[in-house]
Amino acid sequence: MLATATEEASAEPESVIILCGVLLSLVAIFIASKAGGEFFNWLGFPPVLGELVGGVVIGVSALHLVVFPENGDYTSSLIMSILQATTGLEPNAAQTTYEATSEVLSVLAELGVIVLLFEIGLESNIRQLLEVGIQSLLVAVVGVTVPFVAGTAGLILIFHTPTVAAIFAGAALTATSIGITSRVLTEIGQLSSTEGQIILGAAVMDDILGIIVLAVVASLAKTGEIDVLNTVYLIISASVFLVGAILLGRFFNNSFVALAKQFKTRGRVVIPALTLALVLSYIAAAINLEAILGAFAAGLVLDETDIEDQHLEDLIIPIAGVIVPVFFVTVGTKTDLSVLNPAIPENREGLIIASFLIVVAMIGKVVSGWSVFGIPQVNRLAIGVGMIPRGEVGLVFAAVGSDSGALSPALDVAIILMVILTTFVAPPLLRVVMKTEEVAEPETSS
Amino acid sequence: MLATATEEASAEPESVIILCGVLLSLVAIFIASKAGGEFFNWLGFPPVLGELVGGVVIGVSALHLVVFPENGDYTSSLIMSILQATTGLEPNAAQTTYEATSEVLSVLAELGVIVLLFEIGLESNIRQLLEVGIQSLLVAVVGVTVPFVAGTAGLILIFHTPTVAAIFAGAALTATSIGITSRVLTEIGQLSSTEGQIILGAAVMDDILGIIVLAVVASLAKTGEIDVLNTVYLIISASVFLVGAILLGRFFNNSFVALAKQFKTRGRVVIPALTLALVLSYIAAAINLEAILGAFAAGLVLDETDIEDQHLEDLIIPIAGVIVPVFFVTVGTKTDLSVLNPAIPENREGLIIASFLIVVAMIGKVVSGWSVFGIPQVNRLAIGVGMIPRGEVGLVFAAVGSDSGALSPALDVAIILMVILTTFVAPPLLRVVMKTEEVAEPETSS
Repeated sequence: MLATATEEASAEPESVIILCGVLLSLVAIFIASKAGGEFFNWLGFPPVLGELVGGVVIGVSALHLVVFPENGDYTSSLIMSILQATTGLEPNAAQTTYEATSEVLSVLAELGVIVLLFEIGLESNIRQLLEVGIQSLLVAVVGVTVPFVAGTAGLILIFHTPTVAAIFAGAALTATSIGITSRVLTEIGQLSSTEGQIILGAAVMDDILGIIVLAVVASLAKTGEIDVLNTVYLIISASVFLVGAILLGRFFNNSFVALAKQFKTRGRVVIPALTLALVLSYIAAAINLEAILGAFAAGLVLDETDIEDQHLEDLIIPIAGVIVPVFFVTVGTKTDLSVLNPAIPENREGLIIASFLIVVAMIGKVVSGWSVFGIPQVNRLAIGVGMIPRGEVGLVFAAVGSDSGALSPALDVAIILMVILTTFVAPPLLRVVMKTEEVAEPETSS
Repeated sequence: MLATATEEASAEPESVIILCGVLLSLVAIFIASKAGGEFFNWLGFPPVLGELVGGVVIGVSALHLVVFPENGDYTSSLIMSILQATTGLEPNAAQTTYEATSEVLSVLAELGVIVLLFEIGLESNIRQLLEVGIQSLLVAVVGVTVPFVAGTAGLILIFHTPTVAAIFAGAALTATSIGITSRVLTEIGQLSSTEGQIILGAAVMDDILGIIVLAVVASLAKTGEIDVLNTVYLIISASVFLVGAILLGRFFNNSFVALAKQFKTRGRVVIPALTLALVLSYIAAAINLEAILGAFAAGLVLDETDIEDQHLEDLIIPIAGVIVPVFFVTVGTKTDLSVLNPAIPENREGLIIASFLIVVAMIGKVVSGWSVFGIPQVNRLAIGVGMIPRGEVGLVFAAVGSDSGALSPALDVAIILMVILTTFVAPPLLRVVMKTEEVAEPETSS
């Protein structure tokens, strides 16, 4: 009622039209995720890459169905045009409606990545990690340090990238995808081999290292400068937060299970578990770390929670199946491939940077296999190759970096290309490297 | 960057702070839903009422944790105060952050009610309905017509309520809760008795009738006036939409199952199903009906979908378990109980209206039992009493009415009280009415 004075300039958006915008966007996102995921799965590639590519197709690079305000105003969004044609959306309310719809989608994508990291945390078993022990830790540390240092130094020295952006890109090279690696190992029957166990352990550990690195780097990106004292403070606070959450969580886990056992109504296990994830996400975000660090910590804390044959991980899967694709597709929609068009001269440096990142990403992980010691005849090359695929966590880095404004569009796309290519290349490469070993051995073990 | 000029007046909200606001609100909502739901379940009442009451506790009536802009500015929200204390939220950005957070929560609640109605649609079996046949249809029609006409006429003639508001309140009296009724019938072992079957069939039918009535009434509320031609058009379009969706859907269902069978990746059944629900919700909203009518139609269409032993209904349950409580708790948070404080003289009329609605709601359904014909010794009172509990759909009416601005706060609260009381009263009453019968019969049937 008070808004009539400013109505001509920009009218208040109507909630029902915002709802329509969100519904249409979600329909586009779901179709893109299923079409892309199923197609890539049929080709023999991880579905998550298909969801990402599906997002690229409906996003700013192609169809312009789902786009975000950072890529232009409401006239660039096809969904806003559909809303103007099918609902009573007036041009003077279109921009505010567009912004409100985008805000809702951004939060849904954030909730998607929170659930994703919670799930990754649930998959990481701390006790099992301690058993695999020192070999995996060495592989993880080398596999995080070499790409991070080589990537960051190379970008600064060769390409004169700004320091914060270079550190971000270097950090994005660190985390191996547990999901993709473990799937390939299962497929070739090597999950329980010595190499398989070392790879898995190292993949979990470099997730933890990578997420701490991300929390520190993202916080640096917010202030925009590298202050040694601040960096030390951030590393300590991220580590303390994670270790503290796990230690307190071990204690808390029992009361959690006791509480959930008393509950009788729908969602009796999932809702308390998600509540813990949201609380820790909020705390992590409030102390200037990343929300996903909290979600990951909550997952680590609850990873062994079984309540009357209901494994928490299985209960999260249906929810993750719906909300996580929103994140991956959204990352795809924001990826502007046009910055890599080689026909435009100023784009060529971006392509060279992308090639550089891909080479560092692969070599940096392959060398990690040689840090294994004291195990004769271990397939060092297989271990190194097994660490190559980046997958989800790499995409999380790209998304956080892009949102913080630290990454240039070219660097952002270079990171996404790095994730896609390392993930495509690793499964066939791992098959080749492990098969050679198998053939060399006498076939009596089966 | 361009916003610096207006920064002093109202700064742009930061996405990370909006995310923090949403996370904290969801934590409060989840805790309220579990605490309320479990407590009411322990007391022997339906958990959904506990979620509603949990919402009342954290909402505008009590703790002011989760409140919405229609109840005041950001200073009335405890979560905004927490954000100001724990994040870098500045007072000049607080109002825009509050509005953005509330918008996101409103859309989440809308998605919750969409999933709820989709689930109710899945539970309603059209084929089974046709078998129960004419007796249930009579009970449903009488049980919808009597409370609707008596409620609306009474409000206009006795209380001089505006016509649109009176129609809305009358319409809110129509729909029996399938969930609550079927649970009580199961508990007393009467689900497969003649009475039980008639009650269930009628409950499903009056849901369908009720949702058509809601679509029509909500659309009338938007224009604010009753135009006979418009009303006829709306009744026809709502019916055509529902019948058309079901007929097209029967055809579509086979291709849906064929498609989902080809899919291999996570969410292969749920995501296509939800996509259909969102598409129909969008269409219903775009043609000026209610989004939930579309979700309900999608549920009816897919209700017999089984894919390789995966029953769609079971796959939706975990998702509904997380998102549906957001709706119920939100309805509770918006319920301002202070308008019923009898100490304030001008509130007394609201209390009298609430009492009137409760009496009409009960008598209107009880008389429906006497429309059964041709079955000797049927327990007509039990049938009527079984139709009393209103539950979810009644709350949907209250929420839609309140959002449309057609209902005064007093009438809004009166409807919610009606839903709560009819739902509390029905289970014990049904036990008494059905037990009397059982005792009268010789105990040889067991």
